[in-house]
Amino acid sequence: MTDSIRGELRYERIIMGIDPGTNVMGYGLLGVNGRTPEVIVMGVIELNKFESHYMRLHRIFERVTGLCEHYLPDELAIEAPFFGKNVQSMLKLGRAQGVAMAAALSRDIPIAEYAPLSIKQAVTGNGQASKEQVANMLRHLLAIPEERMPRLLDATDALAAALTHFYETSKPAVAKGPKSWAQFLKAHPERIARK
Amino acid sequence: MTDSIRGELRYERIIMGIDPGTNVMGYGLLGVNGRTPEVIVMGVIELNKFESHYMRLHRIFERVTGLCEHYLPDELAIEAPFFGKNVQSMLKLGRAQGVAMAAALSRDIPIAEYAPLSIKQAVTGNGQASKEQVANMLRHLLAIPEERMPRLLDATDALAAALTHFYETSKPAVAKGPKSWAQFLKAHPERIARK
Repeated sequence: MTDSIRGELRYERIIMGIDPGTNVMGYGLLGVNGRTPEVIVMGVIELNKFESHYMRLHRIFERVTGLCEHYLPDELAIEAPFFGKNVQSMLKLGRAQGVAMAAALSRDIPIAEYAPLSIKQAVTGNGQASKEQVANMLRHLLAIPEERMPRLLDATDALAAALTHFYETSKPAVAKGPKSWAQFLKAHPERIARK
Repeated sequence: MTDSIRGELRYERIIMGIDPGTNVMGYGLLGVNGRTPEVIVMGVIELNKFESHYMRLHRIFERVTGLCEHYLPDELAIEAPFFGKNVQSMLKLGRAQGVAMAAALSRDIPIAEYAPLSIKQAVTGNGQASKEQVANMLRHLLAIPEERMPRLLDATDALAAALTHFYETSKPAVAKGPKSWAQFLKAHPERIARK
């Protein structure tokens, strides 16, 4: 355990992505050095085997807590749909998100949310991309070997949330320079070429 | 701290009631000895002061964790509406419920949910009762002095959830005895009076 924690210390920044659901929950951890992100781990938490709704929530809390303790992520990026089929499914989804968030918040890990469309747009350039297209693009962008690709696409969805957060937070700052050539020339008279 | 925890040990059973919301969250703890419930504490967690949704969720988790550690409740009863205005409000409510549940589940405290109508019905005998009627009935049933009644009715709503759970779980067991006089007499021939 201690060894693997130490292993993660080679990253300047670790982003945990989560795609919460009440049947399957995906997670993916991205390690970043400079401008280069790479996959640390990804997987799913299968919740179908638990009959009880509370057992499922408990399991999510335990596993997200475990991931936080083991990998010490600096940020949590969560895939959060803003619309659902009905109020009942949204309540259940809210609970699943809530227990996952509790695990992060209790460790003071900041949370960012991204809508599915924004994640697809950020990763593939197409907000309507399929889960398979997202997974393929991730494999390409992060050079993931075929054999490390997960069977369930909830894992790649979670990793996609983490990568979206990486892109969103590493955009170059807006240039603070002069707004026009006239301003620039006024500020730098020595740069005007004189014959 | 240790003293008040020891103080709570005089109860055979402690039920924590919670009325989760994203603006105000109510809580109420009921101590039970035999068939007599009494109020240990009730109050609210005001969340309006926090701008950030995550700060609110964090606060709920921290406070419910604190209540669990301090009062060591055996069960959690939660007021859980099954229908909401819209999917957005249900998602937010689900998150608030989720973080509160995470605090209980991580301590292996079992959870029971009651719809607002069932709580009103159990406490006042009228599923359409107002919050004020619920509060007044609680004051009567639990002999709460006027000065201990809370300003915000979220607290009494939470206590009402705890009391409903107490009623639901202390209903007398269905008699396992004989179903008819004929069966009884067959089983106990010595009880037949003979002249």
